Amino acid sequence: MKHTYRLIFDCPDQIGIVTKVGDFLSQHGGWICDARHHSDTDSNRFFSRIVVNADSLPFDVETLREKFTPLAEALKMNWRIVDSAVPKRVILMASKGSHCLSDLFDRLRYQEFNCEIAGVISNHDDMRGISEFYGYRYHHVPIEKDNKGKGFAEVERLVDELQADTIVLARYMQIVPPALCDKYQYQIINIHHSFLPSFIGAKPYHQAHQRGVKLIGATCHYVTQQLDEGPIIEQGIQRINHEHTVDDLVRLGRDVEKTVLAKGLRAHLEDRVMVHGNSTVVFS
Amino acid sequence: MKHTYRLIFDCPDQIGIVTKVGDFLSQHGGWICDARHHSDTDSNRFFSRIVVNADSLPFDVETLREKFTPLAEALKMNWRIVDSAVPKRVILMASKGSHCLSDLFDRLRYQEFNCEIAGVISNHDDMRGISEFYGYRYHHVPIEKDNKGKGFAEVERLVDELQADTIVLARYMQIVPPALCDKYQYQIINIHHSFLPSFIGAKPYHQAHQRGVKLIGATCHYVTQQLDEGPIIEQGIQRINHEHTVDDLVRLGRDVEKTVLAKGLRAHLEDRVMVHGNSTVVFS
Amino acid sequence: MKHTYRLIFDCPDQIGIVTKVGDFLSQHGGWICDARHHSDTDSNRFFSRIVVNADSLPFDVETLREKFTPLAEALKMNWRIVDSAVPKRVILMASKGSHCLSDLFDRLRYQEFNCEIAGVISNHDDMRGISEFYGYRYHHVPIEKDNKGKGFAEVERLVDELQADTIVLARYMQIVPPALCDKYQYQIINIHHSFLPSFIGAKPYHQAHQRGVKLIGATCHYVTQQLDEGPIIEQGIQRINHEHTVDDLVRLGRDVEKTVLAKGLRAHLEDRVMVHGNSTVVFS
Amino acid sequence: MKHTYRLIFDCPDQIGIVTKVGDFLSQHGGWICDARHHSDTDSNRFFSRIVVNADSLPFDVETLREKFTPLAEALKMNWRIVDSAVPKRVILMASKGSHCLSDLFDRLRYQEFNCEIAGVISNHDDMRGISEFYGYRYHHVPIEKDNKGKGFAEVERLVDELQADTIVLARYMQIVPPALCDKYQYQIINIHHSFLPSFIGAKPYHQAHQRGVKLIGATCHYVTQQLDEGPIIEQGIQRINHEHTVDDLVRLGRDVEKTVLAKGLRAHLEDRVMVHGNSTVVFS
Repeated sequence: MKHTYRLIFDCPDQIGIVTKVGDFLSQHGGWICDARHHSDTDSNRFFSRIVVNADSLPFDVETLREKFTPLAEALKMNWRIVDSAVPKRVILMASKGSHCLSDLFDRLRYQEFNCEIAGVISNHDDMRGISEFYGYRYHHVPIEKDNKGKGFAEVERLVDELQADTIVLARYMQIVPPALCDKYQYQIINIHHSFLPSFIGAKPYHQAHQRGVKLIGATCHYVTQQLDEGPIIEQGIQRINHEHTVDDLVRLGRDVEKTVLAKGLRAHLEDRVMVHGNSTVVFS
Repeated sequence: MKHTYRLIFDCPDQIGIVTKVGDFLSQHGGWICDARHHSDTDSNRFFSRIVVNADSLPFDVETLREKFTPLAEALKMNWRIVDSAVPKRVILMASKGSHCLSDLFDRLRYQEFNCEIAGVISNHDDMRGISEFYGYRYHHVPIEKDNKGKGFAEVERLVDELQADTIVLARYMQIVPPALCDKYQYQIINIHHSFLPSFIGAKPYHQAHQRGVKLIGATCHYVTQQLDEGPIIEQGIQRINHEHTVDDLVRLGRDVEKTVLAKGLRAHLEDRVMVHGNSTVVFS
Repeated sequence: MKHTYRLIFDCPDQIGIVTKVGDFLSQHGGWICDARHHSDTDSNRFFSRIVVNADSLPFDVETLREKFTPLAEALKMNWRIVDSAVPKRVILMASKGSHCLSDLFDRLRYQEFNCEIAGVISNHDDMRGISEFYGYRYHHVPIEKDNKGKGFAEVERLVDELQADTIVLARYMQIVPPALCDKYQYQIINIHHSFLPSFIGAKPYHQAHQRGVKLIGATCHYVTQQLDEGPIIEQGIQRINHEHTVDDLVRLGRDVEKTVLAKGLRAHLEDRVMVHGNSTVVFS
Repeated sequence: MKHTYRLIFDCPDQIGIVTKVGDFLSQHGGWICDARHHSDTDSNRFFSRIVVNADSLPFDVETLREKFTPLAEALKMNWRIVDSAVPKRVILMASKGSHCLSDLFDRLRYQEFNCEIAGVISNHDDMRGISEFYGYRYHHVPIEKDNKGKGFAEVERLVDELQADTIVLARYMQIVPPALCDKYQYQIINIHHSFLPSFIGAKPYHQAHQRGVKLIGATCHYVTQQLDEGPIIEQGIQRINHEHTVDDLVRLGRDVEKTVLAKGLRAHLEDRVMVHGNSTVVFS
């Protein structure tokens, strides 16, 4: 993978933003490999993701950040510059279901994701074998029914210790406490097994079967304090019919869940997702 | 189209239902061209649609019904026999939007539907031209904001007069009164412009945009007293992204709406839809 | 619709292209509403579509073109600037099938396309009624089996006379002669009723049925001298199964054909399609 | 899973087939849990899959076969009766790519397939670790470039020894010799990484990129002597665009390949696939 710097920003829309950023970059010899923009006309806000060839600049990422700051401030940007050579550190959290985890492991083997796995955390011990087979450290952190805080304190400690910046709930099945949601805002990614906002909460496939829908879905979203209501990153669906039992929905749903989670995670890791209110801009 | 009789029934599941019906038919020389069955294990109910070549039987449909009655009663069937030579009579109801109506008209030209159009009813006069171009009688029945009952009484009178048995709400935009819903139970077909149960009620595309979903949808369902909660016949979706405004969703949604309505209507007209609780069995 | 100028260009890739174009525009006060770029790494070629708010510039489109020329030449661009206030003039060509034509007519009613219909040309008279109902002039130009040149000479004369710049073959069913293909290079849009490159040539649904595929498709492409081998703009598919006869494929295919043609045409009319070798860049 | 017998047959179409089979079953108390039929009108051939509750019959599967034979012969059936309690024995064949294999392993963990894995055979040693992790025996059988016969003789020996009846080419990348194709007719399942019949042969993603298609696909089919021309069981597609390199197609294609292979294999293992000429009937 090419060594690049990703400049991600949003700011009030006005004339000449791209040109000003472009001028800044070219005066230092910066080669733009990719640039995506979005103007939200409702909020009059401008979103941008500009990728620069790192080798085309005569200085390192810290200097780039320093030199860019005045322009960023002048344009009132909410911004960051990410160095592609510093992959995000990801914690995978799972329960007893293996499909999302196995799928991610195989994709990691193919190097589909630009990240390092800091570890796997689970409230059960079932996924230890497969995790360790792939060479990832496994942390069994039980969540006790009447003292969930204890387990989550340990989770938080681990995330800190392992210096993770992204947490993937790969069918984790536990509700993340509000404080943790806030601490890792837009860094916790969940896969919900319904086409949100349909069937929020528990047992969505039972709900779907009950309602008699003809399509089921899965939703990858950032976790916020509001259960299943965070900004949606990606969604997918699967056609079903009257012959399918709830068990069939669960089985068919697994395919959508793992695919949608992988797509959403990939977008997140490439800094292609920007949150805007409760929605996302996802540059393709 | 081949002349056939469609035997549609559901009954408590037990051993030998298909064989008993098959025996009945073959003893009269009946040639089964198509047969679909479904056993619902939750309710222990059996659903079936059996199509017989009309010419293979030595009597007419009335005699067939008479002769079949004892077996139907013995098996405690909820049943009907439909003669494909007697197409259903359909009322199309529209408002100002043309996409569903135009699409249906073109499909009728291609003879995609086994039906007769009894007429078009609208609370506006906009669709008169296109309806009359295709040779259908147009009835402008205004629905007054503070006296909806008056308009719907006229609608009901027309449906009676025109001897219609199926009413298609092709983006009709008015809520059908409960009494009418009940009178034409499972004969009124609506297209709702969302992926139900998401975004029930008004302005679903605005709701979808607000929630930031990545897929929009449309739902074809039977109309019941509970708004947008009737048995779902067919659903479809369309991928969207952050660039799409509400107007884009409305535009992209039209494609899904017209396709899904046409599929649902076709299934209904071929007696392939059976209602089961608040769900449907739709034989392909 | 906002009044804009669309700058479409491709050129050898090098550092600072976007910035140079941005500088040029901002020094005249040009407000960029939308910008899409693509670097093709195989050919080292850069593709761009930049949309400028027309009102933000102090001069008209002719002056813009004049002032832009030096930069365009310096960067060795293949370029054009399109004024959104000058809609393309489109000829629709049809045969006896109505589905694509009716669909386009309804979309035109909804103003989905930024264009003017210069007229409808057909080798049959069947589509006169619907065309004239929508207010479009209809030209019946028969194509004689053993003297096709005569008919196509008349077609060419009409296209000239009607000052059309885009020709849509809405299931026209005739092979356009090579000279006409060349004269209107990348301006003739066809819908082929297969998922190209599968089933080139005649009767693709028969070929699909014969081969036993589980999905059928349609392809919208620019017409070139090589039959069904021109640059692909858009494709879509439809799931089928063993129960479907060739007639069913024809029926189900119509839905894909009309949708795919409309999407491809819309992209073309908005100057979002750029041809690159025998492929296309289609900005979303 | 319920213990059932699956009666699979095809025969010349005529009146009363289903009834005769039904009579035969009910006179022995047989409870039909599922029945699917298909009449091919072109060939006048009837296809059927009838599932009987094993416990409802007073004898074992051998006796059932014996008793059924006279009727099967009278109706000139091509038939078999499969005991669901005797799962098929499957050999998985792989090369260096892991995605299909890992995906199948995870599905096996979820018991999505009614089968026993007799072993994994590969011409490389790369997949030994993951195979053995899941508890499957791994056989490394190199295929030498200039003496492929030797390797395939060993493959054949292993298939015999392991008493396998189904061979899954999970991206095996080697062309199976004609004799082996014939020996295991309609028992060797391949996943081809294109939407057949497009892009037969080597490097289909390169071919797809070259042609500039907007959708890529994968095809699960039975292997015959004609490379990539065997009866198609299942197909799927994935949307792509101009930004995608060949490497992207390879990556996106993996998702389709593994999903389509799993669907096709599942249908095969449940005896829902019947070959008809070079097509398949796949009962849902």
